[in-house]
Amino acid sequence: MNICQVVGHVWATKKEESLAGLKLMVVKELDARERTFVAADVVGAGIGERVLVVSGSTARRALGRDNTSADCAIVGIIDSLEVDREKTQQ
Amino acid sequence: MNICQVVGHVWATKKEESLAGLKLMVVKELDARERTFVAADVVGAGIGERVLVVSGSTARRALGRDNTSADCAIVGIIDSLEVDREKTQQ
Amino acid sequence: MNICQVVGHVWATKKEESLAGLKLMVVKELDARERTFVAADVVGAGIGERVLVVSGSTARRALGRDNTSADCAIVGIIDSLEVDREKTQQ
Amino acid sequence: MNICQVVGHVWATKKEESLAGLKLMVVKELDARERTFVAADVVGAGIGERVLVVSGSTARRALGRDNTSADCAIVGIIDSLEVDREKTQQ
Amino acid sequence: MNICQVVGHVWATKKEESLAGLKLMVVKELDARERTFVAADVVGAGIGERVLVVSGSTARRALGRDNTSADCAIVGIIDSLEVDREKTQQ
Repeated sequence: MNICQVVGHVWATKKEESLAGLKLMVVKELDARERTFVAADVVGAGIGERVLVVSGSTARRALGRDNTSADCAIVGIIDSLEVDREKTQQ
Repeated sequence: MNICQVVGHVWATKKEESLAGLKLMVVKELDARERTFVAADVVGAGIGERVLVVSGSTARRALGRDNTSADCAIVGIIDSLEVDREKTQQ
Repeated sequence: MNICQVVGHVWATKKEESLAGLKLMVVKELDARERTFVAADVVGAGIGERVLVVSGSTARRALGRDNTSADCAIVGIIDSLEVDREKTQQ
Repeated sequence: MNICQVVGHVWATKKEESLAGLKLMVVKELDARERTFVAADVVGAGIGERVLVVSGSTARRALGRDNTSADCAIVGIIDSLEVDREKTQQ
Repeated sequence: MNICQVVGHVWATKKEESLAGLKLMVVKELDARERTFVAADVVGAGIGERVLVVSGSTARRALGRDNTSADCAIVGIIDSLEVDREKTQQ
């Protein structure tokens, strides 16, 4: 699961019909790569929140419908994330 | 789903038969990586438009035929994309 | 399988229900890319340990439930890793 | 689908049995990343030609056998590729 | 399929049970990215050899058991790899 921040919304009137009704949000990976992409939200995430994002067939599972045309889904809102720098080394 | 721009067309006479009839377009990721690749269009996208692109088994779902040899599909035309820079940081 | 180090914990109260009960850990790839992401632990890994991480549908297999919304799983704790620099060349 | 150029051949006597009989070619992505990898050819591509390459479960579909151990396949030979630079912007 | 070199071994006593009995080797991509990761060997590869590596669901197919927790597999030992630099251009 990728650690991302919700940074925006996206609207698409013309879309494959299985996407109807999905809340599509723009997310940015909080990672060196800083990839920006779109994920369907199933947990009610808001702008600025850090979230867990899954992709591929797992995203379809999370959306509860295997025939959906969405391949990324927000599956959790991060309350806290703790990284132990002492016990870890590069 | 990747945020891409449609930048061109591609023609391939000699191809795996399940690709027959698909409209294949060249898309460029609107992202630091700027990956350029080919996706099958199911929503009638035109050159210059920003689109949502899915890949892998989800693309086959979007194309409505699980045995297709296409692994990328354009599934939505972006009307507007709003990124809130104030509420987001990094 | 990616070679990662466990670097932290992540908490998410609001999450897709299939994630309930999973121990979610932050892992960092021990690789030039140094990707940091979240994986569900099935082997009792601790902070600082080097682990093997799988992703996608294989992670769902490792978690023993195909409908889970987790797409990364820690499947082994590395005892030792031996790289033979003499027999290998760049 | 990735836009690649066929750049060579690869031979492997000792291989997983489902790969027997496949024509394995070395392809290079025509992209900033310039990834070089191996794909099984199903369309009779030759050295120097630009081709469409699919990966993952879609490659297995293209090869017509779901139990194959190949995860990349050449599925089309590109006749022409037209990128409209005027209508597109970075 | 990725072109890799076998560079080492990895041992993990504590691991998800489906991994028992698999020979796990460290491989390095012979590519600009030089990714280093772990793959299960099904063809008897040795340190220093160049090999073909598959990933994801295809790796599970190669290992002959769909429920395995391994997502990378060595499926061929490369005898020779011939790249035609004259007929190809960057």
